[in-house]
Amino acid sequence: MDIGFIGLGAMGKAMAANLLQAGHRLTVWNRSPAPVEALVALGATAAAAPAAACRGEAVISMFADDRAIRETLLEPGLVERMPRETVHVNMATISVALARELAARHRAAGSAYVGAPVFGRPDAAAAAKLHILAAGDPAAIARVQPLFDAMGQRTWSFGVEPERANVVKVAGNFLIAAAIEALGEAAAMTEAQGVAGAEFLDLMMNTLFDCRVYRNYGTIIAAGNYEPPGFKLVLGLKDIKLALAAGEEVDVPMPTASLVRDSYLDAIAHGDGEKDWAALATVAARRAALGERS
Amino acid sequence: MDIGFIGLGAMGKAMAANLLQAGHRLTVWNRSPAPVEALVALGATAAAAPAAACRGEAVISMFADDRAIRETLLEPGLVERMPRETVHVNMATISVALARELAARHRAAGSAYVGAPVFGRPDAAAAAKLHILAAGDPAAIARVQPLFDAMGQRTWSFGVEPERANVVKVAGNFLIAAAIEALGEAAAMTEAQGVAGAEFLDLMMNTLFDCRVYRNYGTIIAAGNYEPPGFKLVLGLKDIKLALAAGEEVDVPMPTASLVRDSYLDAIAHGDGEKDWAALATVAARRAALGERS
Amino acid sequence: MDIGFIGLGAMGKAMAANLLQAGHRLTVWNRSPAPVEALVALGATAAAAPAAACRGEAVISMFADDRAIRETLLEPGLVERMPRETVHVNMATISVALARELAARHRAAGSAYVGAPVFGRPDAAAAAKLHILAAGDPAAIARVQPLFDAMGQRTWSFGVEPERANVVKVAGNFLIAAAIEALGEAAAMTEAQGVAGAEFLDLMMNTLFDCRVYRNYGTIIAAGNYEPPGFKLVLGLKDIKLALAAGEEVDVPMPTASLVRDSYLDAIAHGDGEKDWAALATVAARRAALGERS
Amino acid sequence: MDIGFIGLGAMGKAMAANLLQAGHRLTVWNRSPAPVEALVALGATAAAAPAAACRGEAVISMFADDRAIRETLLEPGLVERMPRETVHVNMATISVALARELAARHRAAGSAYVGAPVFGRPDAAAAAKLHILAAGDPAAIARVQPLFDAMGQRTWSFGVEPERANVVKVAGNFLIAAAIEALGEAAAMTEAQGVAGAEFLDLMMNTLFDCRVYRNYGTIIAAGNYEPPGFKLVLGLKDIKLALAAGEEVDVPMPTASLVRDSYLDAIAHGDGEKDWAALATVAARRAALGERS
Repeated sequence: MDIGFIGLGAMGKAMAANLLQAGHRLTVWNRSPAPVEALVALGATAAAAPAAACRGEAVISMFADDRAIRETLLEPGLVERMPRETVHVNMATISVALARELAARHRAAGSAYVGAPVFGRPDAAAAAKLHILAAGDPAAIARVQPLFDAMGQRTWSFGVEPERANVVKVAGNFLIAAAIEALGEAAAMTEAQGVAGAEFLDLMMNTLFDCRVYRNYGTIIAAGNYEPPGFKLVLGLKDIKLALAAGEEVDVPMPTASLVRDSYLDAIAHGDGEKDWAALATVAARRAALGERS
Repeated sequence: MDIGFIGLGAMGKAMAANLLQAGHRLTVWNRSPAPVEALVALGATAAAAPAAACRGEAVISMFADDRAIRETLLEPGLVERMPRETVHVNMATISVALARELAARHRAAGSAYVGAPVFGRPDAAAAAKLHILAAGDPAAIARVQPLFDAMGQRTWSFGVEPERANVVKVAGNFLIAAAIEALGEAAAMTEAQGVAGAEFLDLMMNTLFDCRVYRNYGTIIAAGNYEPPGFKLVLGLKDIKLALAAGEEVDVPMPTASLVRDSYLDAIAHGDGEKDWAALATVAARRAALGERS
Repeated sequence: MDIGFIGLGAMGKAMAANLLQAGHRLTVWNRSPAPVEALVALGATAAAAPAAACRGEAVISMFADDRAIRETLLEPGLVERMPRETVHVNMATISVALARELAARHRAAGSAYVGAPVFGRPDAAAAAKLHILAAGDPAAIARVQPLFDAMGQRTWSFGVEPERANVVKVAGNFLIAAAIEALGEAAAMTEAQGVAGAEFLDLMMNTLFDCRVYRNYGTIIAAGNYEPPGFKLVLGLKDIKLALAAGEEVDVPMPTASLVRDSYLDAIAHGDGEKDWAALATVAARRAALGERS
Repeated sequence: MDIGFIGLGAMGKAMAANLLQAGHRLTVWNRSPAPVEALVALGATAAAAPAAACRGEAVISMFADDRAIRETLLEPGLVERMPRETVHVNMATISVALARELAARHRAAGSAYVGAPVFGRPDAAAAAKLHILAAGDPAAIARVQPLFDAMGQRTWSFGVEPERANVVKVAGNFLIAAAIEALGEAAAMTEAQGVAGAEFLDLMMNTLFDCRVYRNYGTIIAAGNYEPPGFKLVLGLKDIKLALAAGEEVDVPMPTASLVRDSYLDAIAHGDGEKDWAALATVAARRAALGERS
């Protein structure tokens, strides 16, 4: 297929490479030039401006946050100028509110739009092992399914309202953050009671919680190894705020999310915003003054 | 081995049966007679009183809570009268404080004591698939290892202070309760946003959280199927209070545990104390008045 | 003095009337016409558009929220077109972020700006008994002091950065909301223990907490009398979000504010958003299922 | 009247002195001898043992916690041996559960019992300005009313179940702790936003919250003056636990109390348990790393 791809961060770059690898033709754009060059070396065409990439059978957007989508696509009116035969596939983690706005503007403009955020970190993106959450017009999804197949291990369908895929993504990220908070609290308690957090976490990861999230974050917390970050804590705060906002839109209290948000602020106040978001566990340890015990 | 076994609830009965199956000789006692008769039919000897079962190479206690241990073993002074060649193995989920007291009294009496709580529900006990967390004098643990091998799939060691095994057990149960709370909040939010909680939970159980705890409780919550209970909500409250107490002993705040405790009280106030402890999810749904939405 | 006054809600109308009463000349504007007519009857001049009221020695703005300020003053560029001899006095409860932006735009435009939110409800406004929190250039404050004297019982000074007055206002409103939440929880507990909440609250209001906030809300909660609202619950949510946002700007967790926010969402989900914000107490009662007890 | 008085801490000593001053005859007992000697110098008679003070028209107990009541009165069986003509007036802050047990044991023994905890610190006790919360048999209360009049400024009645006075006391102390927590959070936020906490608190104490509790704790927090303690933080934790226990008995979640409990543990973990319980405000400041900001 002939497609545009805008937003080539750690995730986008790997996803675009897999699309090229699968034989698709890509016109790519990114704010900074380095990843563009890397993809051109793999066969992509560089777009001089976002508008030049908004054409073809599909356009994939993969930005870091709402602001980037607003500045690149919404404010310049690119959504309204997308060709009717092009399917816009937004794969970035954005707010439910912005996803709803994007859907409405595409609907008004008569162009096709699919919400398709993903689960998976850059290594999963590189291995084409992403889980893709897709929502939108079934015909539009069917048209871009070959692209999903080239980037992910499985596509999960969440109906025709595109923003619902974002609801699911945001709820999933909340579950991860909540799990990290709980792991931090539990490890702080066992430590203070004389059981090394690492021993406790090793048991958990191998018995009750033998799954990716607990293995990954249990290992990081056990080692106290928060740098370099796999996912920055400031982005964790962004994501938990997306969950709180999604809840607030529909009058749903999420007290665990509120608690996690406060722990993130505590971590950022203590200078840990650029560490891995698992550094939430250091907040639990600090509340207990573990570092000041002999 | 020649052993005593006191406390034959759903867990104890299955564990004792596996010991008989492995060729050990058991003298059993239980408050109510039915499980005693069932085990006698499998070859056990019935004890007329707890004291009569407190003899042999090991005595295993498997009660529902601190109170049962106090009334059966501590108040009658059985701990002090256990033979020096007998290893008392407490496998019940008890408070860290009581575990410490048991250890101290055995130490004072010169008798051997091992803390050995387990992870696994009755079906895992029946299948001899328990994870056994053992702490105490290594020589004493070595003597009872054949018993552990007959009841569990693996023994995890947590050092020489017997109460530390209970610390780990209590921390693990807290992690489960925290996961249930988070699942409930996330599902309430997705429901209100138009995504069926079941669809969301199905994704989670098959991707990020593909492990026993999330599969089990995700399935229960998705189906809204809280009766009959696998583990009663009132016992969940008991367990979260054990975690809070363990934290308080060593000055460790556990805000997620506090939050979960409050949700349990809410559930009990609404008449759900005898349901499965996953009914915590109904509290999240009620906070959002999901039941009152069309 | 010759002044403009824009925003004539319950508060603004009463404040403007006091200014007229004190002999000042007012040009007034409001989105809906009724309060304008009422003030014209008292001697004010009606402005056809906000711009027509942005002149004279001072312009007072008194809107319900950030959005109204943005739409009326910022988006049309009125801030930039205010005469250099005019002092803009914003007395509305707005976000710290918007207060900072207003200050910066006035500074850039070379015009004078004073932040001056108030404590007091419409009855206090009518009685010229407001407490006015003022921050900004001392010379500018001095010029509008006669206006403050006509509207309030006392002016409190918070330095030269105009947004700091808003910081104080937002923090104060948070304290009120937190007090209401605690009153609700305490009354729910005493009720369930057999002591009428009203009896308990009566004691508190007359002993430890013999002050306006507790008297006011204690009386409302004791009577369960949430309609008509003195201050709507949805506005309470708005205010607690201003506190959380002010905290987040400077990395300060406010866990009590988070908890109160979640209680507000619970109340709104249950249809109580238009009631008095003291209806927070019904959330505490519902968590305990008080209404379902005989 | 001829009365016994047991428990002569800072509160009890001042209350007993006022009773002597009013002309009553006191037989006093205390664990440590110094306060006994001081009261003997004022005309009291020393009792060699608690039993010797459990006689006369009334016996007042004023201990620091549940444990002291248990060890002094319950375990030695003094409750059962109190003369039928004696009214036992317990004025200590104890758990609702213990108050209920005391009432039941007196009822079974056929002796009179009144629950009468107080609001007021040692200075109020010395000035006979206590607020006394009384519950129990009206005839018994009437008999000891002259004693209340000698110790307090007003007696508040809470019906015939003696433990209900304790419910009210426990709920009131919770309100104080919740107010301190909120003051700490608000002051941390204003500080980080550039407004000295002291300035903010000064405003609050003189406007919205012009009452004893806010004045007292606002002043302490503004000055950061937590030593010597007026009321120790570890006792604050004890009191908040009484509130949580009272709620738990009747299935009432009190999330603010849970939050405050966790803050107390944080403070104690950081070595502040012996400071004034207003040091809760330092926890809010530490969460925001205020001490590490320039």
